[in-house]
This record gives sequence, C-alpha cells and structure tokens, in this order.
Amino acid sequence: MVGTEHIVKGYDADLSRLDNMIAEMGGLAEAQLAAAIGALIRFDTDVAQRIVADDKKIDELESQVDDFTVKLVALRQPMADDLRIVITGLKISSNIERIGDYAKNIAKRTLTLAKTPTIGSSVNTIARMGNVVEGMIKNVLDAYIARDAEKADDVRLRDQEVDQIHSSLFRELLTYMMEDPRKIGPCTHLLFIAKNIERIGDHTTSIAEQIHFMVHGEMPSDDRPKGDSSSFTVVEADGTARK
Amino acid sequence: MVGTEHIVKGYDADLSRLDNMIAEMGGLAEAQLAAAIGALIRFDTDVAQRIVADDKKIDELESQVDDFTVKLVALRQPMADDLRIVITGLKISSNIERIGDYAKNIAKRTLTLAKTPTIGSSVNTIARMGNVVEGMIKNVLDAYIARDAEKADDVRLRDQEVDQIHSSLFRELLTYMMEDPRKIGPCTHLLFIAKNIERIGDHTTSIAEQIHFMVHGEMPSDDRPKGDSSSFTVVEADGTARK
Repeated sequence: MVGTEHIVKGYDADLSRLDNMIAEMGGLAEAQLAAAIGALIRFDTDVAQRIVADDKKIDELESQVDDFTVKLVALRQPMADDLRIVITGLKISSNIERIGDYAKNIAKRTLTLAKTPTIGSSVNTIARMGNVVEGMIKNVLDAYIARDAEKADDVRLRDQEVDQIHSSLFRELLTYMMEDPRKIGPCTHLLFIAKNIERIGDHTTSIAEQIHFMVHGEMPSDDRPKGDSSSFTVVEADGTARK
Repeated sequence: MVGTEHIVKGYDADLSRLDNMIAEMGGLAEAQLAAAIGALIRFDTDVAQRIVADDKKIDELESQVDDFTVKLVALRQPMADDLRIVITGLKISSNIERIGDYAKNIAKRTLTLAKTPTIGSSVNTIARMGNVVEGMIKNVLDAYIARDAEKADDVRLRDQEVDQIHSSLFRELLTYMMEDPRKIGPCTHLLFIAKNIERIGDHTTSIAEQIHFMVHGEMPSDDRPKGDSSSFTVVEADGTARK
C-alpha cells in the first residue's frame, strides 16, 4: 500500500508540475503582450527588440510541455479525468505559444512604425484593446490553475468586447487612410497589430473553452456571441466606412 | 496468444482510423482553401457562403479526433513511438482546424469584396500564392500518411516561396492604395486575405515539423529560412514601398 501511495503522490506531483509549466508559459506570454503594447505606445525599439528575442523562451517552454506530457502519459498511463487534464494542458500550451507569436509580431511592426511619422490616437485605442486582452489572459490562467469553469466562461464572454473594439478600430483606421495617403503605410501596420490582438483574444477564448472541457467533459454548447464585423466592412468612395 | 494478436490488431486499426480521420479533415481543409481562392477570383458569393457554412464540418471532425484520441490513449495505453503518433495526430488536427478557419475568413472577405469596385491584378497574385499553399497541404498530408519525414521537410522549405510572394504582394497593395484612395477598402481586405494564406502556409509548415518529430523523435534542428519581410515594410510619402 505504501508503494501505491508513493506512485499516486508522484503522479499528483507530475500534474502540478504540468500546471506550473503552463502557468509559467502563460505568465511569460502575458508579460510579452504587456511589453509589446508598452513598446508600441512609446515607440520603444529597445523593448520591441527584446520582445522579439524573448519569444524563443516561450517556444522552449512549449517543447518542454510536449516532452513532459508524452513522458507523463507513457509512465503514468492516466485514465479519464486525469488524461483529460493532460491532453488539455497540451492544447493550452499550443494556444499560449501562438499568443507569444502574436506579441512578437506586434513588436516587429513597432520597430517599423518607429521609423514613420506619428499616427494619432488609434494607438491609444489599440492599447485599450490590448489591456482588455491582457486581463483576459490573466483571468484564464487563474481559471486554469483553479479548475474554475465559471471563471473561464466569463473570459469567453469578454472576447465580444475585444471584437467590438477591433471592428470600430478597423473603420477608424480605414478612414484615416482615405483622408491622408501618407498614413496608409503606418495605418496598415496598425491594422495588423489590431488584428494580432484580436487573434490573441481568440486564442485566450479557446483556452477558456478547453478549461470548460477539462472541468465538464464537454465543450461549451452555445455558440459564442461574435462582436467582430471587420471582415464585412465596406469603405465608400467618400471615405466613410459602413457595415 | 490469439487474444494478444486480436488486441494488437485492434490497436493497429485504431491508429489507421486516426490517420483516416486526419486525412479526411486535411482533405476538407485543402478543398475549402481551393474553393475560397476560386470564389475570390470569380467573386462568387454562392460558393463563398457555402465555404463559411461548411467550416463547421472541419470543427466537428476536430472534436471527433479529440474524443477518439482520448479514448485511444485510455484504452490502449500506447508507449513510445505509438504514443508519439497519437499526440502528433492531436496537434496536426488542431493545425488543420486553423487552416479551415483561415479559408472561412477568406470567403467572408470575398463576400465583402464582391460589393466593391474591381481591384486589378493583385487577385491573380493571391491566387498564385494560394495554389502554392494548396500544393503544400496536399504534400504534407501525403507525407503524414506515408510517415515520410523527407517529404515533410521539403514542404517546410517551400514555405519560403509563400513568404516571398506575400512580401511583394504587401508592397504592391500598399502602392495601389497610395495611388487611389478608393482602393483602400478593397485592398485592405486583400491584404488580410494574403495574410490568411501566409498563415495557412505557417500552419502547414508546423504540420511538416510535427511529422519530422513523429518520425525522428525530435523537431527539425535548423531555423527555417524566412522569406517574409512584410512586417518590416516602410511606405514612403511618394507611394513607393521599401524594406
């Protein structure tokens, strides 16, 4: 019996090591996004360059999670709920890696934007959108560690706000581009930065859905309300954007 | 012994069922991309609408792969190589699901573009880029079924071509926008469509790397050459784009 207990204890330790790895990875991705938004507001190329370089750390952590998961399944042969936790961990780490990629891309475009003329208040709207997403990442990581499906569902609903900011930002940036062709270059980069943040929101939502699955054994049943209509925005010849 | 053989045979059948599910999912995503490019060239809103609706099929297949994988690991408790195949299958299905998402997004933007004035030859360049990526998806699926790491490595190298087309397209579209502000709206949608295809290329590359991992037990060691410099493109006030 002592032997069995030892094995079980070792297994619990493995699961909490997996949790720690994912929490570390997620914390890093959250910090990268926060730094990327900060670098964008101040056109800080030093910070932007550091962000681009630091993305490798998240990639390495993902590899470690992959390796550890394979070893854990092979050695412990988990069943049912435990297996679900392990598989979910694998999927979540893949979402976090993409979030890191998008943060890196924001930093890359900031390096380019720092070379162009100033571009007005849209950067502040982007920062606001970024702050909402940062909060979502923080909460989703808390929900993962606490196995709190309700908190995860809450994060999922907040993505609508991100989509709405993104849609209105899309129209705003197009309007600036129509007014002044010199802004086309920088505004295009801002369009992609906004899109990157919107995608980070999507991946965070996907993590929230995985947590729901981990706790309840099934994905959330309802279709999530979508607030992003930017794919459907038509710009008129007079420079106004309509949906 | 008969019993053991039966179990082993059942297990092989499970693994080949996983392969079939992934091949079906991949074939569907490839078809969705081909249809999306076709719909874009002809501004065919009927086809575009069908693509948006059909994306659910890929999502459902991903859920089935997830469920099947969990059951397979729980029942068969695979070790080493077999476990690697199962985990790889899970990751590849997640990449295919994203490819389907991007194809759907191209179709959504096509619905919008069909309402705007014609936008010149860039659509043809996008179609060329789309064809390269379609070929990559086809080859990577073949490589997966054949467990052919060399073929997968080959796909990975071809992503450079996609990145190069994307970079030059990015500059071309920005130049059109500078020349004629009425083109800003439609060209912005084309920029995002081009980006979607470039991301599909990235996910296909990621599948290729997973296949390499499945066969060799480690990820490809070299950093893949990157051909995309669009994040670093600066547009001058006179409408020319430089890197």
